[in-house]
Amino acid sequence: MTLTPTPGDKFSFGLWTLGWNAQDQFGGATRPHLDTVEAVEGLAERGVWGITFHDDDIFPFESTDAERQHEIDRLKKVTADTGVVVEMVTTNLFSHPVFKDGGFTSNDRAVRRFALRKVIRNLDLAAELGATTFVMWGGREGSEYDAAKDIRGALERYREAVNLLGDYVVEKGYDLRFAIEPKPNEPRGDILLPTVGHALGFIATLERPELVGLNPETGHEQMAGLNFTHGIAQALDAGKLFHIDLNGQRGVKFDQDLVFGHGDVQNAFSLVDLLENGGPGGTPAYDGPRHFDYKPSRTEDIAGVWDSVEANMRMYLLLKERAAAFRADPVVQEALAASKVDEVNTPTLNDGEGYDALIADRASYEDFDAAAYFGGKGFGFVRLQQLAMEHMLGAR
Amino acid sequence: MTLTPTPGDKFSFGLWTLGWNAQDQFGGATRPHLDTVEAVEGLAERGVWGITFHDDDIFPFESTDAERQHEIDRLKKVTADTGVVVEMVTTNLFSHPVFKDGGFTSNDRAVRRFALRKVIRNLDLAAELGATTFVMWGGREGSEYDAAKDIRGALERYREAVNLLGDYVVEKGYDLRFAIEPKPNEPRGDILLPTVGHALGFIATLERPELVGLNPETGHEQMAGLNFTHGIAQALDAGKLFHIDLNGQRGVKFDQDLVFGHGDVQNAFSLVDLLENGGPGGTPAYDGPRHFDYKPSRTEDIAGVWDSVEANMRMYLLLKERAAAFRADPVVQEALAASKVDEVNTPTLNDGEGYDALIADRASYEDFDAAAYFGGKGFGFVRLQQLAMEHMLGAR
Amino acid sequence: MTLTPTPGDKFSFGLWTLGWNAQDQFGGATRPHLDTVEAVEGLAERGVWGITFHDDDIFPFESTDAERQHEIDRLKKVTADTGVVVEMVTTNLFSHPVFKDGGFTSNDRAVRRFALRKVIRNLDLAAELGATTFVMWGGREGSEYDAAKDIRGALERYREAVNLLGDYVVEKGYDLRFAIEPKPNEPRGDILLPTVGHALGFIATLERPELVGLNPETGHEQMAGLNFTHGIAQALDAGKLFHIDLNGQRGVKFDQDLVFGHGDVQNAFSLVDLLENGGPGGTPAYDGPRHFDYKPSRTEDIAGVWDSVEANMRMYLLLKERAAAFRADPVVQEALAASKVDEVNTPTLNDGEGYDALIADRASYEDFDAAAYFGGKGFGFVRLQQLAMEHMLGAR
Amino acid sequence: MTLTPTPGDKFSFGLWTLGWNAQDQFGGATRPHLDTVEAVEGLAERGVWGITFHDDDIFPFESTDAERQHEIDRLKKVTADTGVVVEMVTTNLFSHPVFKDGGFTSNDRAVRRFALRKVIRNLDLAAELGATTFVMWGGREGSEYDAAKDIRGALERYREAVNLLGDYVVEKGYDLRFAIEPKPNEPRGDILLPTVGHALGFIATLERPELVGLNPETGHEQMAGLNFTHGIAQALDAGKLFHIDLNGQRGVKFDQDLVFGHGDVQNAFSLVDLLENGGPGGTPAYDGPRHFDYKPSRTEDIAGVWDSVEANMRMYLLLKERAAAFRADPVVQEALAASKVDEVNTPTLNDGEGYDALIADRASYEDFDAAAYFGGKGFGFVRLQQLAMEHMLGAR
Repeated sequence: MTLTPTPGDKFSFGLWTLGWNAQDQFGGATRPHLDTVEAVEGLAERGVWGITFHDDDIFPFESTDAERQHEIDRLKKVTADTGVVVEMVTTNLFSHPVFKDGGFTSNDRAVRRFALRKVIRNLDLAAELGATTFVMWGGREGSEYDAAKDIRGALERYREAVNLLGDYVVEKGYDLRFAIEPKPNEPRGDILLPTVGHALGFIATLERPELVGLNPETGHEQMAGLNFTHGIAQALDAGKLFHIDLNGQRGVKFDQDLVFGHGDVQNAFSLVDLLENGGPGGTPAYDGPRHFDYKPSRTEDIAGVWDSVEANMRMYLLLKERAAAFRADPVVQEALAASKVDEVNTPTLNDGEGYDALIADRASYEDFDAAAYFGGKGFGFVRLQQLAMEHMLGAR
Repeated sequence: MTLTPTPGDKFSFGLWTLGWNAQDQFGGATRPHLDTVEAVEGLAERGVWGITFHDDDIFPFESTDAERQHEIDRLKKVTADTGVVVEMVTTNLFSHPVFKDGGFTSNDRAVRRFALRKVIRNLDLAAELGATTFVMWGGREGSEYDAAKDIRGALERYREAVNLLGDYVVEKGYDLRFAIEPKPNEPRGDILLPTVGHALGFIATLERPELVGLNPETGHEQMAGLNFTHGIAQALDAGKLFHIDLNGQRGVKFDQDLVFGHGDVQNAFSLVDLLENGGPGGTPAYDGPRHFDYKPSRTEDIAGVWDSVEANMRMYLLLKERAAAFRADPVVQEALAASKVDEVNTPTLNDGEGYDALIADRASYEDFDAAAYFGGKGFGFVRLQQLAMEHMLGAR
Repeated sequence: MTLTPTPGDKFSFGLWTLGWNAQDQFGGATRPHLDTVEAVEGLAERGVWGITFHDDDIFPFESTDAERQHEIDRLKKVTADTGVVVEMVTTNLFSHPVFKDGGFTSNDRAVRRFALRKVIRNLDLAAELGATTFVMWGGREGSEYDAAKDIRGALERYREAVNLLGDYVVEKGYDLRFAIEPKPNEPRGDILLPTVGHALGFIATLERPELVGLNPETGHEQMAGLNFTHGIAQALDAGKLFHIDLNGQRGVKFDQDLVFGHGDVQNAFSLVDLLENGGPGGTPAYDGPRHFDYKPSRTEDIAGVWDSVEANMRMYLLLKERAAAFRADPVVQEALAASKVDEVNTPTLNDGEGYDALIADRASYEDFDAAAYFGGKGFGFVRLQQLAMEHMLGAR
Repeated sequence: MTLTPTPGDKFSFGLWTLGWNAQDQFGGATRPHLDTVEAVEGLAERGVWGITFHDDDIFPFESTDAERQHEIDRLKKVTADTGVVVEMVTTNLFSHPVFKDGGFTSNDRAVRRFALRKVIRNLDLAAELGATTFVMWGGREGSEYDAAKDIRGALERYREAVNLLGDYVVEKGYDLRFAIEPKPNEPRGDILLPTVGHALGFIATLERPELVGLNPETGHEQMAGLNFTHGIAQALDAGKLFHIDLNGQRGVKFDQDLVFGHGDVQNAFSLVDLLENGGPGGTPAYDGPRHFDYKPSRTEDIAGVWDSVEANMRMYLLLKERAAAFRADPVVQEALAASKVDEVNTPTLNDGEGYDALIADRASYEDFDAAAYFGGKGFGFVRLQQLAMEHMLGAR
């Protein structure tokens, strides 16, 4: 296995990631904006397959139609020239003051209508550019104060918006699916659809649930102290892993957007193992883009930006290599068996068994030796974990 | 309004709450076990309407059938004598060593079968006692180590279990609904269905989703840094608030199980406001039990236990009184209007409007004055929050 | 007691608080900058006693000497006209790109020298304006990556800087004390001196520890899940509460900078009780400025900014009123006695007792009835907490 | 380098760690108690150098003098037989009901006197057994409710206790130093001296500060979201790293007590690098015991317990090996230089330079080119981090 990325790896980057000028809550920009063409060319040189963007990343909010078209044309040209794919497009409904109380769920109805129009216009662009996923991160949909937002009303409006956009996409015949990106907080005190779970629950209430899935982000789940690999597994279970945002986060704090693997590397390892080896017979469980949504640290200049681009892909490929070795190791296979890890895939009921048969089975209850689990029947999970760590650390 | 509880308030308590002997992770019991009869009588004297319990709360895990029946009979007698209702029953699948890797999702299939049998037996008891809600807290369903649990397999087994139990309840004709209680962690490093959202997403994948709802617990959501009122609102939006566990938690840390309102009182205030005034025309949005699942602090003796029982109800009633005053205050009503809080309940689209009409409406986009939101069009949320705080603090 | 602020309340505000233009990590400014003169006049009209500022708040980083002096003159005039006091000054070592790896502890020595010069210049200004406290928030002193910062070296440089500035202040005869403001993270992944405790430990290693104390901020401690009242108590115990930053935070997440009391109001209540009633005989335990360091929410226009200014002071005065009533209530006094709260102020040893006498006292050990604490000797803390809550809620 | 532990590695284990019977807050014991002799023999066989214990680990709280002596004799014999050292002793002031409001700081003065006696008796035992460190973890010193504890009074009592014990140790001529172990919460809602920093600040207020240092625990700092390596560095800076508790924690949640390196492995790597290579010329910065304070997961039987013992040491040795390779790599050395990591060890002032000379140096300010830091002068931290990760992962 090689650690040099190729388009076959399906790595993609948001233009707002390497393009970030490093202005943050407590300080001004430390880098100039990176031009779209330079960004795409640099990504292509490094084996990157795809790019993604918000409308405002390419043409500022106040652009005239001509300015907007000029930037779109430049993007089209450079993607054509380099072979880089526009795989996903998303809409900025969070930076401009008009969205200070949200887009789809602002208390101000005129803002909601404006937000819908901004998204519809961007859907047309996404379709035109051949993107197949349309991400919706509702970073401003939320509140700081409990009395300031009628949450049920806001969820109704969110649903109304997604339903309308679903109509639009279907009736226009666009080959686009929506992917909701959850986040618990920041910039709002509490954001609607704060986790993978809440978004799954919401999708089940939509008119076209089949059209809408998830774009989970590593750090966003970890900001709520949740296990990202578990969240991705539940998304896969529900058939809703439409896209993914890979990055790094070091615990429950502000959104760090570190390089993938530079946060909780142990969880990154199990994630890559799930994505790459979690399908039938050890095949990949996910075949979509491996998309990085991170920020090159504010301490870096442009050389550091490109270092960080490379670091994301290298960490992914390295963990992929390690996960393959982990799965192939006979000692690991024996330890997994000892821990009965695969036994959870055997149905609890016998084939055709219902509750009557279960109740009739005295071995299941009356004759079951529960006491044997005291001082015995250990699961061997610590040994298994140590083997996983040693594989991750390249020590086996 | 009075602050003295009556059965009409529908307050209920888990017998394991006041009955807790105060043994914790770092220390032994500081109180003797509280007998069931004494507990129910004491609750009845204080105006409590209902009780709930785990099987093992009433008869220890190793009880013989005769011992079990003896305890059931005592419970029946005291509830009959006092008029206290058994409103909910739940099963302990977490204390005994046999459940050390979970019940429904243990890697060990024999344990899973045993767990199903334990629950089925308890369903019969719940139906016999007239309970209408059956809670499932899967506190041991989870893992410490990512490699030790196939999460998708575990979710499959969880679903298999709930589907089977649904068959059982329906075919037996029991008047019982299931309520899943999410928790992010503790005692497992990561628990399956960690939040209200994840449980909602899971329910949507069941064979009988209509039979299964939620029993959200204040502290469990707050352990993930999530806004409990928001979670309850989403549960209501999905029609899934089947039951509720009220208690107190002071931030992202171990599960504190404080008295309701003794944790994040501000969030408790908005919760009570939602439950009591969030329905049509300011009626209650929830008519189920107001159930307390808390632990009287380990520093307390039996007098302190009863103080804590009373404190839960008094806090609820006090916040209910304050929420009513908040809603009735004309200044608040004016502030809510200024903040356009109710405008989120107006559909974003006009009646019958589709995307074509929206796109044709130049006011929505081409002529919309986004710039007016810079330096203007403030939402007045801070003023509204201050009014809410002053009502909560009894200062208006 | 009145809820209308007067200068006697010693309320002060940072000019960067109401002056914040509401640009955040994910969005642009929603408000124009508020001019210094307008800010000070508005504060004076509302009964505010003092103001504070960073150098860059008044004159931008790139100002010429003439521009700088012009702004200083305007500030002097408006404070003279209004009687508002400049009580504290602080230096911005975090916004400009030059400080991207910190000021006093940047890996780049030239930056460290520049930072010292910037601070020295600002010390002269602070002394000239009559400020008596000089705050140091080292928001960029820290790291994202463990290998990137030699923490012991960085602490050495921090100490070198504070020692030099101590020499300067003492030898110039300035009536100024330093106050370090801890913060755990944001904008850096981990910040040096992350909590009140770490700063106390650091101060003990300085050449002039008497010259340096703390400026703890509510939300900063709460971002680490710590109890702010406890932190303030330890600062008082060490004689180091030189200044305080009051604001609101709702749990372990990004730095919210809400209005004081709009976060964890229960902890705000105990804090005000400590500050106002925690001295000998129930007198104040702290006589310095009651300084607000918060951000008016990004949703607000200028009217909301002024609402938020007023809300801070009103919350403080309201909680002060409630704390006084709590202390005066005979039932509370009886409950405090029952909980032996004041007994912790009785030395554990008798007067003159050493270990020999203690060992000789059989009542202390051999005859001590430890078993009586099982099922008895409850501390009554829940009852006391309920009384505290009821006073805070104005319900007694 | 070998991954097989030897006594020269100075690994030690608390007897309560492998001896834990796996009873937790939500479930009963899953394993029998492990006898002292069996534990020590098993540790010796695995190359362990030392052990530690609480008094109650060896002889239960209610033991008669004869029972106590019997257990002490057994311990003496097995340590003599195996050559295992008793390197640290500590006192259990948290499990028995008598300590339900703490030991040294209980509101109940009689409890405080009892606690002192229990500790004094245990000091005699520690000295007799040749231990040189005496740890104090005040896990029950704290509160759930702000009004229930006068924190300043409690800190006074804490100080009184430590001062008295210092008298005792010094006057008895014991070769013992005290090490305070901080923890933010659990089992109390808030614990006194919650972090490394708070304990450092407290030590500075003692009568014999030289006698008292720290015993920081990995997971305890990480429960507050703090960087453990940073905390250890500050402890070293203050000359206060007297002992260390190594284990694993996965974020801000309940106290997990995982195997060392099974939590935040990245932070474990930088910690080992600091301990082993952070002294002058790359020598160790700490020469005390490498002590593990963890809990073998509740899912494990005795085989899993021993697996976990071995895993702790293997993780440490593996990370030590990786840290040595990291330091030896010329590419890393070049990257460290490019990032100016060592430059933070160069004083900011020139030799003999005071503020006058600094002010006179126009290069430091007037002629300093701050603007060069925009778009330039990147620190290269991401590249350095990637190199650190690759070394940790054994990929270079």
